[in-house]
Amino acid sequence: MLNEDRIIQSLKRSFTAPGGIGDDAAIFPFIKEESYVITKDLLIEDIHFKTQYTPIKCLAEKSLQVNLSDIAAMGATPKYVLLGISIPKHWEQTINSFLSHFVKACKKSDVELIGGDTTGSKDKLFISITAIGIVKNSQIKLRSSAKDGDTIFVAGNLGYAHIGLKILEKNLSGAKAYKKAHLTPQAKIQEGIWLALHNEITSMMDLSDGLYVDLKKLSLSSGLSAQIYIESLANDNLFTKACRKIQLDPIETMLIGGEDYSLLGTVETKETKRIQKLFYEKFGYPLKIIGKTVKGKKGSIIFMKKGKIENLQLNPFSHF
Amino acid sequence: MLNEDRIIQSLKRSFTAPGGIGDDAAIFPFIKEESYVITKDLLIEDIHFKTQYTPIKCLAEKSLQVNLSDIAAMGATPKYVLLGISIPKHWEQTINSFLSHFVKACKKSDVELIGGDTTGSKDKLFISITAIGIVKNSQIKLRSSAKDGDTIFVAGNLGYAHIGLKILEKNLSGAKAYKKAHLTPQAKIQEGIWLALHNEITSMMDLSDGLYVDLKKLSLSSGLSAQIYIESLANDNLFTKACRKIQLDPIETMLIGGEDYSLLGTVETKETKRIQKLFYEKFGYPLKIIGKTVKGKKGSIIFMKKGKIENLQLNPFSHF
Repeated sequence: MLNEDRIIQSLKRSFTAPGGIGDDAAIFPFIKEESYVITKDLLIEDIHFKTQYTPIKCLAEKSLQVNLSDIAAMGATPKYVLLGISIPKHWEQTINSFLSHFVKACKKSDVELIGGDTTGSKDKLFISITAIGIVKNSQIKLRSSAKDGDTIFVAGNLGYAHIGLKILEKNLSGAKAYKKAHLTPQAKIQEGIWLALHNEITSMMDLSDGLYVDLKKLSLSSGLSAQIYIESLANDNLFTKACRKIQLDPIETMLIGGEDYSLLGTVETKETKRIQKLFYEKFGYPLKIIGKTVKGKKGSIIFMKKGKIENLQLNPFSHF
Repeated sequence: MLNEDRIIQSLKRSFTAPGGIGDDAAIFPFIKEESYVITKDLLIEDIHFKTQYTPIKCLAEKSLQVNLSDIAAMGATPKYVLLGISIPKHWEQTINSFLSHFVKACKKSDVELIGGDTTGSKDKLFISITAIGIVKNSQIKLRSSAKDGDTIFVAGNLGYAHIGLKILEKNLSGAKAYKKAHLTPQAKIQEGIWLALHNEITSMMDLSDGLYVDLKKLSLSSGLSAQIYIESLANDNLFTKACRKIQLDPIETMLIGGEDYSLLGTVETKETKRIQKLFYEKFGYPLKIIGKTVKGKKGSIIFMKKGKIENLQLNPFSHF
């Protein structure tokens, strides 16, 4: 079985640039005190999206937002975008609608569409986007810089996009907020920039593969282990109800549901309360505390309930 | 019928950056006197390559070179690369070989592989590469800056890659040089940089879609018409023989065969001889003169034979 992380690891060994492929975006120099960050995300028909429940407008917006989310996760301001598309026969009628929505989405997010490539495709639509952002060198946030004993935070929802996907797959009515979370996630650009301004934030990444998988990556990169406080998850009654309705466990959904594009990071523990207060004042929603980093087996995740280790078996989703 | 140029034109109207999608690469600022150029090319299984006659090593090298060729065409020095791959089941055994050859190719071309993305794919391998180069602002070569009466040149072969492809498709033996031209084209990086140093070179692009189609693009961008001197083509006996052997017309093959990744451009007519001499001294092969730009219908191509207009019917290849 092929594993995406194994391939990335195998590539990563060849990298020389700071940040490298292991981070949300790669870094290369701009003017003296600033750098560019660059990311590249692929969206493939029937792997990342299905046409039967994905309106063209949503697909165009999401294609952009998932890339901008990587830029946000580095603390950078998105600046430029390139769009590559491979178009099969059954998309020929709708591709112009996709393009015009994509162009609008770029304008809305204040990024310049500066180039790209279009080709034919045998039978699936392939979307490949490159996004570039700018960040002050002193404000770059990596996933490899968490310190032992830091507090782990999440900015944004957990599991919403996954419930949304399940509801769309089952073709159920209602549940707009969850469907929207899957169809048109919004990159947390302002939050990323704000968090990057604070030295107390020691690491950051975006949540694309789910909290469990992504926190494993952050911990591994930082050479640490991570505890997740189970009590901190699923304290939202509506979410719990929505999960139960489609036979999903709310805790498991928050841990392994992907594509929320919330921000995951670490903050110095003694500064956590102050940063949380400031964050709430600025954005009107809480910076959720969900665990802490500890010394231990690199990349291992320990679940904690009422101060004790809890044994949880998870089966993270994978595109492979 | 969908047409790649129509899509690119429709995208182009939304572009703001200099160079834009209409050029080989888009331009964005680096330090004061220099810019980055960025390009993105897609290679799709069974559209751009077929596994039955494409060794993995060649595929890896070509994926890189076709992107570096866009950088070379702007007169820039390639610097960074990002690799996106979507991997179907039947590629799982060979993808590591592709990766290791790709990494080697990057080292050979002195470019840093700084990031990328990997995902699954339903049934075709999809390769998406982003390449970034650096160029002095005063040396950037665009396809839109040819002047009326300039001489049109080509650096490199014409039609070799197309014969190579036909020979590979027919599974014929021998003809190594042509097969190689198709399987492992080499971006004309040193030539691009050298030509960019000369102000007498008024425009430049790379030849990916064939001389006829690409010269149409250059002329259209420059608001001019172009004459091609038929006599300047196919004066190579071995090439003519190779064409005849597989029932191809040599002139037509040179005009519409794609994927040579030679450089096409214009030079001030009064400086042509001097530049040709210097080019030959530097690179050991001629800068071929194949025509001139003239006032007329933008983007129209006029074939000339012994000073008279020649009527030629061509059917350019297209990926659509």
